[in-house]
Amino acid sequence: MIRLGRRRPSTPRTRRGAPPKVERIALGDLKPDTDALLGRIAYLKLSLFESASAVAGRATDLGDREAITRVAAAVLQQHTELTALIEARGVASAVAMHPFTADIDRYRRRLADSGWHESVLTLHLSAGLLDDFFAGLAAGLPEPDARRVVAVLQRDIGHDALVTVLQAGLTADKRLASRLALWGRRLVGDTLLVARSALADVRDAAGQPASTEERRVEPILNDLIAAHTRRMDRLGLTA
Amino acid sequence: MIRLGRRRPSTPRTRRGAPPKVERIALGDLKPDTDALLGRIAYLKLSLFESASAVAGRATDLGDREAITRVAAAVLQQHTELTALIEARGVASAVAMHPFTADIDRYRRRLADSGWHESVLTLHLSAGLLDDFFAGLAAGLPEPDARRVVAVLQRDIGHDALVTVLQAGLTADKRLASRLALWGRRLVGDTLLVARSALADVRDAAGQPASTEERRVEPILNDLIAAHTRRMDRLGLTA
Repeated sequence: MIRLGRRRPSTPRTRRGAPPKVERIALGDLKPDTDALLGRIAYLKLSLFESASAVAGRATDLGDREAITRVAAAVLQQHTELTALIEARGVASAVAMHPFTADIDRYRRRLADSGWHESVLTLHLSAGLLDDFFAGLAAGLPEPDARRVVAVLQRDIGHDALVTVLQAGLTADKRLASRLALWGRRLVGDTLLVARSALADVRDAAGQPASTEERRVEPILNDLIAAHTRRMDRLGLTA
Repeated sequence: MIRLGRRRPSTPRTRRGAPPKVERIALGDLKPDTDALLGRIAYLKLSLFESASAVAGRATDLGDREAITRVAAAVLQQHTELTALIEARGVASAVAMHPFTADIDRYRRRLADSGWHESVLTLHLSAGLLDDFFAGLAAGLPEPDARRVVAVLQRDIGHDALVTVLQAGLTADKRLASRLALWGRRLVGDTLLVARSALADVRDAAGQPASTEERRVEPILNDLIAAHTRRMDRLGLTA
């Protein structure tokens, strides 16, 4: 879990010879559009749910299949609660989600057709990174939406169960570690693109697009990468 | 919905020249093994859930996808409640489901690789027929399991939404009706086999295997077929 502070002070460098001061942004300082953010996250959850139930269906062990089906159920529950928030605003959830389908479908296609353990790792790392990121971004929504969306995204979808499945695979097959390490490195780049794409749509407190300047976005991405690295570490994989 | 009477009197034919009296059986008169029946239905629901979420994922219209995802969620909820009943008996759900995976996987494979509307029809007809059948069979379980399982299976998974999707397809494409009528006729045979397979495992009040004599099982299957025909009629399809 990354820090979700709504008002993180910028960290100006004042030493002589340091680069010019950059006004860094924190996720909670951004002002996302509510319908767009809810639509994007709801569609992401729909996509992740479908991936999860497909991964469950490909499990050879019935216990694994049950465990991953529970993860799919938790993700579906998140999707359902988000669409309920959208519909409560008088917006059809399909309409709110529609602008984001092409981007997210492309992301999903890029990560499809992998081995089964790779798909389990995708579920674990992708949901982990994007839940962190979108919980941070949703903290900038007006209340009570901020509180509600953050609560949905901070709820555990069952990461321990995914880690258990992965660890069993790593124990059974010594060659799996290098495959999964490679996959994790590939995955993180594509997943950060999904976060960047959301940042491109929101403006900071000064009305500037949040993603216009690389250095201002960097700290946000660094936090996400640090949490990703901890997830890889827990599996004994090199990030 | 078929009649779920636990004690349906047999209907002896007494007219001259009629065939010899056959002691017919009603579903509720059978004494199924609780763990086996719960395991079989739970696995069927897991399989149906995965099919439903795959059908949802193949929808081209986002509204249809949402509607079918809600059906998938309802089926997953049935699965989850059934596995909770199994676990409450001190049995691991994977253990209870395992004996039925091969049969049900074969059923699912036989109905895979169809067009999208055919898959939606499968969801509607297969869930409809098997929920009717297993609710009838579960009525013969000891209480409180009978009441609980029947309540789970009689809960509507969202058939109206499936009918709406199918009707829109039939309106848009005049050739779809003959394809779906053909598919419905093929489907019912395979689905009745799933019911027959469950009957082969249970015994009637006299301790006889329920499926040993074709004529005794016939009325049960006839009720299922009649309900199936009503579902086809509602869609304007010839059963």
